[in-house]
Amino acid sequence: MKMNDKGRLFVISGPSGAGKSTVVFKAIEGRDDMCFSTSVTTRKPRPNEVDGREYFFVDLDRFREMVENDELLEHAEYVANSYGTPRKYVEDKLESGLNVLLDIEVQGARQIKAKKPDAVFVFIIPPSMEELRRRLVARGTDSERAIEARLIRARQEYAEADFYDYIIVNDDAERAAKELSAIITAERCKAENRINFLKEA
Amino acid sequence: MKMNDKGRLFVISGPSGAGKSTVVFKAIEGRDDMCFSTSVTTRKPRPNEVDGREYFFVDLDRFREMVENDELLEHAEYVANSYGTPRKYVEDKLESGLNVLLDIEVQGARQIKAKKPDAVFVFIIPPSMEELRRRLVARGTDSERAIEARLIRARQEYAEADFYDYIIVNDDAERAAKELSAIITAERCKAENRINFLKEA
Repeated sequence: MKMNDKGRLFVISGPSGAGKSTVVFKAIEGRDDMCFSTSVTTRKPRPNEVDGREYFFVDLDRFREMVENDELLEHAEYVANSYGTPRKYVEDKLESGLNVLLDIEVQGARQIKAKKPDAVFVFIIPPSMEELRRRLVARGTDSERAIEARLIRARQEYAEADFYDYIIVNDDAERAAKELSAIITAERCKAENRINFLKEA
Repeated sequence: MKMNDKGRLFVISGPSGAGKSTVVFKAIEGRDDMCFSTSVTTRKPRPNEVDGREYFFVDLDRFREMVENDELLEHAEYVANSYGTPRKYVEDKLESGLNVLLDIEVQGARQIKAKKPDAVFVFIIPPSMEELRRRLVARGTDSERAIEARLIRARQEYAEADFYDYIIVNDDAERAAKELSAIITAERCKAENRINFLKEA
């Protein structure tokens, strides 16, 4: 049924190695009510990248203007490049009834929480730190030292993740994806989104 | 995965004719984490009824004692018989990790809200009042006058249902059941139930 209601913004975070992207892709597979947000960046487009598809490419002046004009829901400036989430892009999608997914670090998520308190915050974690270490080792892309740094960072993120609405423990990607999909479905059933059904009855 | 967490109490309400029980039975089909609550009643057991299965059968003195001792999460006294939801029975099930389902009217639900604010309240409604009338007529068990009374009662319930967490519009029992099942799964993922995963990491 077409509920004619607005979409919800889902902010997904979790430590590197938690298996986030697998869970997210499995969860949205076959759903026609989902889309990803597209970030703004100051980095130069690579040969195959298309403006508005991989990223919205802007120069640093335009980026800073966007920050000043509150056109970004969150942003992070690194030494080389800056990244942000364009408010209007997200709000247009939500207005059209689509749920928007954002995969983002805890600090960016906290910025969004301040601007969009009605967004839904989901933290995806591995079953334990030992298991996280095991997965990072198995991945084989990081040095022992880089892995230690990732584990320290994960603990930091855990300590800062007190504002998330849901926690998914990814011990089994199928089950974790079902949980994420259930969260998306359940949030659309929240009474505040459907209260008109009672009022207009 | 065994999360070792406590179950949640799900309170389901909705007007007669909304198709509540079909939705509930489809939703819990194949789930091993659900059970129904068993009510206490002062009415006499029928030949095939077993104490503790259909109801807990008590006499009026015991029932009133239960009310006084706050042993009931909610209760309603009618002219002929009284009914209530036994607190200890529900809490033992929750403690064991099972989710407990309660199908109950709005006024009883409000009593539970006062005693168990962390319960989850789900209101199941038909897509419209016209459709509700159509279903009640099709059912063929009520007189025209009884149907009018049910519709008036439904409107009353809608007006009082402002404290429900979720609204499910039952235009399609399969979809509505999926939504109820998603709500149950999502509520188990709520951060407050899993915060230990962050703290113990």
